[in-house]
Amino acid sequence: MNDFTARNPDFATYITESFYRQGLMQTFGAELVTVEAGRVVIEQDFRDALLHQHGALHGGALATLLDTACGFAAVSLLPVGKGISTIEFKTAFLSPGAGTRFRITGQVLKAGRSITFAEGRAVALADKGEKLIATMTASMMTFALNPA
Amino acid sequence: MNDFTARNPDFATYITESFYRQGLMQTFGAELVTVEAGRVVIEQDFRDALLHQHGALHGGALATLLDTACGFAAVSLLPVGKGISTIEFKTAFLSPGAGTRFRITGQVLKAGRSITFAEGRAVALADKGEKLIATMTASMMTFALNPA
Amino acid sequence: MNDFTARNPDFATYITESFYRQGLMQTFGAELVTVEAGRVVIEQDFRDALLHQHGALHGGALATLLDTACGFAAVSLLPVGKGISTIEFKTAFLSPGAGTRFRITGQVLKAGRSITFAEGRAVALADKGEKLIATMTASMMTFALNPA
Amino acid sequence: MNDFTARNPDFATYITESFYRQGLMQTFGAELVTVEAGRVVIEQDFRDALLHQHGALHGGALATLLDTACGFAAVSLLPVGKGISTIEFKTAFLSPGAGTRFRITGQVLKAGRSITFAEGRAVALADKGEKLIATMTASMMTFALNPA
Repeated sequence: MNDFTARNPDFATYITESFYRQGLMQTFGAELVTVEAGRVVIEQDFRDALLHQHGALHGGALATLLDTACGFAAVSLLPVGKGISTIEFKTAFLSPGAGTRFRITGQVLKAGRSITFAEGRAVALADKGEKLIATMTASMMTFALNPA
Repeated sequence: MNDFTARNPDFATYITESFYRQGLMQTFGAELVTVEAGRVVIEQDFRDALLHQHGALHGGALATLLDTACGFAAVSLLPVGKGISTIEFKTAFLSPGAGTRFRITGQVLKAGRSITFAEGRAVALADKGEKLIATMTASMMTFALNPA
Repeated sequence: MNDFTARNPDFATYITESFYRQGLMQTFGAELVTVEAGRVVIEQDFRDALLHQHGALHGGALATLLDTACGFAAVSLLPVGKGISTIEFKTAFLSPGAGTRFRITGQVLKAGRSITFAEGRAVALADKGEKLIATMTASMMTFALNPA
Repeated sequence: MNDFTARNPDFATYITESFYRQGLMQTFGAELVTVEAGRVVIEQDFRDALLHQHGALHGGALATLLDTACGFAAVSLLPVGKGISTIEFKTAFLSPGAGTRFRITGQVLKAGRSITFAEGRAVALADKGEKLIATMTASMMTFALNPA
């Protein structure tokens, strides 16, 4: 899958800065743990601030983390001066968001000239192994960033 | 559309309590403004804590609000002792999440015995009118709540 | 909703010709019954050739009709020389595809410069009224047609 | 991924018979090439009867084949006396449906008691290798078949 080549040599620095500038990622306390060409991994601790009324991770929190991972996976393949806007995503919830820590991976499937397709996986981390709890498929559009 | 009849006479109280017990809704500072049989409306102020790196509302924040509205719309039609779990949702982003306040509506399309289908609309509120910025379609499963 | 204005004055003729040139619509025996700016309606008889093994309309047949309706609804708003390519769609199946005739409507939600968002509804027609059996949300990309 | 165990020892025969009994698969002329516990592969020749107006495979045809592959992948894990009904699916179209033959794979991600999640891949086959042209994610519900 991951035979992508980055066009911006500084993509990892650019993505790291962008990630921690997102108000919502700051709110979540999410951590960016891997940035590769076409693939981004985020980790997130279980926190009361992110739950639904039955005490598990809110589906919207998982969708947010998956969208962020897929989005930055797409950004990693952009040339300088371009940005990514999500057209749509679908998230499926295979198992409840229970656990103490979660790993969310975004992976580009196709990086077209104007449209990028990516998919995401969210797993709950545990001593006995990983459990797949949610998936995402997303499509995103490339746009020209305004010069600063 | 909205010719649904609630089976729990106290659904509005139950949903209001559940909504404000969600850690993530507290984190967002979202407000529950309407609860009807099959339809729920949430409003949300624009807040720095909910943004992406380009300064608009994060797509995940919109998905979270839409999921919450659709989920409680489904809950409004449940008998006492049942809960709702999201199977999946898709969110489409028609326009950037710019504005000062947003209204998010969840509406049940079909409430089956085990599966409920709902759709959501998110609009940016402005003096000159509403602008549709995102939509959701969701499917949810009914499950039996454990007796307290 | 439907305050769209067509840019190609001959869009209805163009869509009618395109519809009946689709091999798959010929295979289905589908009928194009309404073409408006931003809205297209197709009708389809129940046929053995379109069923799944339990004797109802195959979900793929419904998705095909919904995709076609949404796609041509998008085409109705294009200038001359442009075409539409589906990026993705999601179809939800609310009730089995039982009945003798079906009406499938595609409606544009937003026609952007490069991306169009549409939604579709499929209903089973019966003497006692219509029954909603499936919905679609779709995103589509505009591309330049090659000159003939 | 594929560490699933079938509960119906005759699942392959049952699926083969069901596949070729589908009116729509007969119409398409699709071929069932692999049936395993949790995984089904279909192949389909390019045919004029399945095209859209620009001469490539109709998106609805791809969705139909993906839905069929995902559905039978889910069926392969059912006990005797149960059937599968698609709740919803999303299909993404990464590249045009051009080529002479297509391979469509459905793979179960999670087989729950009442809900099964699957994903699908459609590739165009060519001398120089496979090209991913479409993906699906689907959720399906188990129901009790009526005794014959």
